Amino acid sequence: MANDDIKQMWKVPEPTLRRLPWYLAFLKLMKGKGETFVSSTQIAKEINVDASQVAKDLSYVNVSGKTRVGYEIATLVDVLESFLGFTSQHKAFLFGVGSLGAALLQDSGLTQYGLDIVAGFDVRPELAGTTINSIPVYHMDEFPAKIRKYGATIGIITVPVERAQEVTEQIIAGGIKALWNFTPFRIRVPEHIVVQNTSMYAHLAVMFNRLNSINQ
Amino acid sequence: MANDDIKQMWKVPEPTLRRLPWYLAFLKLMKGKGETFVSSTQIAKEINVDASQVAKDLSYVNVSGKTRVGYEIATLVDVLESFLGFTSQHKAFLFGVGSLGAALLQDSGLTQYGLDIVAGFDVRPELAGTTINSIPVYHMDEFPAKIRKYGATIGIITVPVERAQEVTEQIIAGGIKALWNFTPFRIRVPEHIVVQNTSMYAHLAVMFNRLNSINQ
Repeated sequence: MANDDIKQMWKVPEPTLRRLPWYLAFLKLMKGKGETFVSSTQIAKEINVDASQVAKDLSYVNVSGKTRVGYEIATLVDVLESFLGFTSQHKAFLFGVGSLGAALLQDSGLTQYGLDIVAGFDVRPELAGTTINSIPVYHMDEFPAKIRKYGATIGIITVPVERAQEVTEQIIAGGIKALWNFTPFRIRVPEHIVVQNTSMYAHLAVMFNRLNSINQ
Repeated sequence: MANDDIKQMWKVPEPTLRRLPWYLAFLKLMKGKGETFVSSTQIAKEINVDASQVAKDLSYVNVSGKTRVGYEIATLVDVLESFLGFTSQHKAFLFGVGSLGAALLQDSGLTQYGLDIVAGFDVRPELAGTTINSIPVYHMDEFPAKIRKYGATIGIITVPVERAQEVTEQIIAGGIKALWNFTPFRIRVPEHIVVQNTSMYAHLAVMFNRLNSINQ
């Protein structure tokens, strides 16, 4: 990868990275309908974002539109999928094979977006040696050996809240570089570690509160 | 519920509703450790939010702290759980029993936070009449009859992207008031409908991009 591309990658703001998958989903839809060109105005209208924002977001991706006709959809789909990392596989370990953890192991759909969950870990001895959706589950004690074997860089955290910080520290010490935290606990990490929080409970709180307002 | 309480509920901003579950998770941890009082400064430090923000967020909840000692933890846990709607059950239907949809049906953990998924729907005839985790799966054609039977108000959308908008319109017409959208498609809804987007793919995009930056 050329040095300029790397710099460009560093520069991408998180809100842009969050919006690009929306554009991609819409573009795939258009492609499926047989459309060939799209303008940033069209994307903007569909996604409910300013056209200037769409153009700015797409400026981070190495693709250029043509005056009047816009972007070629097939090219933009390919470039976006690759840019977002969905076309290469990233190895992940999942920590905490409880209800949510087991459910995530069963979701093969994530593989299509570049996430390859290669193993699950749990402290309960009875889970060690089992498999879920062909993914092996190991005892947490085996983590140091397994990270050397698999070279996973992403850790999915689905442990109980009271173990979240402890597990976080343990797996960072073992070499995990990015954490996808599904617990409602705000884990603390060193600056160079990437964290994404998916708080299902926060979404529930918003929905319940708004529903109650409607029902009054 | 008194009129003042209702007004108070309407006023709660979404960022506050998203932060309150973090506070709750931390408070439950402290309670488990036998602690009895907590200050907003302590919460702030733990969660990495300004103390004034914590105090403001908690002002929406009907609970008052005492000077010097702070909030009584056990009371605050109870009040927050109830305020966030986690202590009452909210009936939900899930649309699209694919890989992610089936995984969510298997996650019994959501029940503990007040989300009761009572049925799944899919257009594939072979899924109709099956159950996942004791939750019945019906053909989409049965939705109008089933919403009358169950009175569900929440719709979880896990259909393929190309069906997201169509299903959204269908279920709103049937009486669903709040949508939890797991697809990467930006669904369009009337103003009175509540939407929460959980885009797993957006989180992946951010993680992959940052990991690539680290690895260069």
